[in-house]
Amino acid sequence: MPEKFSLKTTRKEGFYPITDSVREAVRKSRVKEGLAVVYCPHTTAGLTINENADPAVVHDLILGLKGAYPENPDFRHLEGNSAGHLKAAACGSSLQLIISGGELLLGTWQGIYFGEFDGPRTRTFFVKIMEG
Amino acid sequence: MPEKFSLKTTRKEGFYPITDSVREAVRKSRVKEGLAVVYCPHTTAGLTINENADPAVVHDLILGLKGAYPENPDFRHLEGNSAGHLKAAACGSSLQLIISGGELLLGTWQGIYFGEFDGPRTRTFFVKIMEG
Amino acid sequence: MPEKFSLKTTRKEGFYPITDSVREAVRKSRVKEGLAVVYCPHTTAGLTINENADPAVVHDLILGLKGAYPENPDFRHLEGNSAGHLKAAACGSSLQLIISGGELLLGTWQGIYFGEFDGPRTRTFFVKIMEG
Repeated sequence: MPEKFSLKTTRKEGFYPITDSVREAVRKSRVKEGLAVVYCPHTTAGLTINENADPAVVHDLILGLKGAYPENPDFRHLEGNSAGHLKAAACGSSLQLIISGGELLLGTWQGIYFGEFDGPRTRTFFVKIMEG
Repeated sequence: MPEKFSLKTTRKEGFYPITDSVREAVRKSRVKEGLAVVYCPHTTAGLTINENADPAVVHDLILGLKGAYPENPDFRHLEGNSAGHLKAAACGSSLQLIISGGELLLGTWQGIYFGEFDGPRTRTFFVKIMEG
Repeated sequence: MPEKFSLKTTRKEGFYPITDSVREAVRKSRVKEGLAVVYCPHTTAGLTINENADPAVVHDLILGLKGAYPENPDFRHLEGNSAGHLKAAACGSSLQLIISGGELLLGTWQGIYFGEFDGPRTRTFFVKIMEG
């Protein structure tokens, strides 16, 4: 069964680190070799892997995504969050990580982030461990 | 063996709902816990998960992707569909979904879409079920 | 255990074909049905699947990504490679491919690429094979 996690986002847009939650799911599973799939069940939020060291990178990711997917007066969706839907699509709804030796195989500078694009809200995500 | 599905796209660009096909592959497999991987074997088409309720979201996704990846006179690819290749890369060629209790774990508002970026054409996609 | 591969990138930005390495990992595993997950452990490099035939497509992908994610004087990350972080996020850190009949299920025109967005550097990537 997948593990379910909750997250309260505090801003309209932001990237929230979830590496520790994914590691917790991996350890709890006791799987030594396999995959961890992280899944976001929302349509204005997504998942990404990026630098875990300098918080300025998160600032720049938000700024760069806003540049690529700005508000547009021709958007028709009446909720007014179409740019958020686009950013969610750009990041994607799932991540796949390799488990090796009982640990997540992450690069030195990699962290796992939950991207909020229409907050603040209470959000959820799932981690599914596959052995093999 | 992966399940193969066909799709006739009717416009130059569009997002076509394929959630029912993926659900069909899950049910046919009788797998209760695992993963469903959807794969697009084309280079000017991709896959995404986004809102299933308001068709205006699909309109806005197409418009927003065109804004991020417009036609460019400096493109060199002679087929003239480089923007389509970029949109395919932005969406991605595969999706991973969690299967739990014999059902796809999708958010309330999530639908699975096949994104056509150089149609109309007859397209295919594959669904591979992994138990675990 | 995942297979590890090394790659020397030769330019600031580029897409390097790695299809043969992924095929090698699939054959070595002797798995007939399953998944191949390719994973990039870097934060200014990513993975994508795109056209394998005309090198102009790679040129146009680099140009189009630069258009979507240009340099920005408001970026705060002092290393000056925030656009590279954004392009890495746009491509993604992992790919999932279906293995069927002992072979990668790729479309006729599809090739697997390692995307360098802050080179030249020595880079690595991993291939994990899951049977099922």
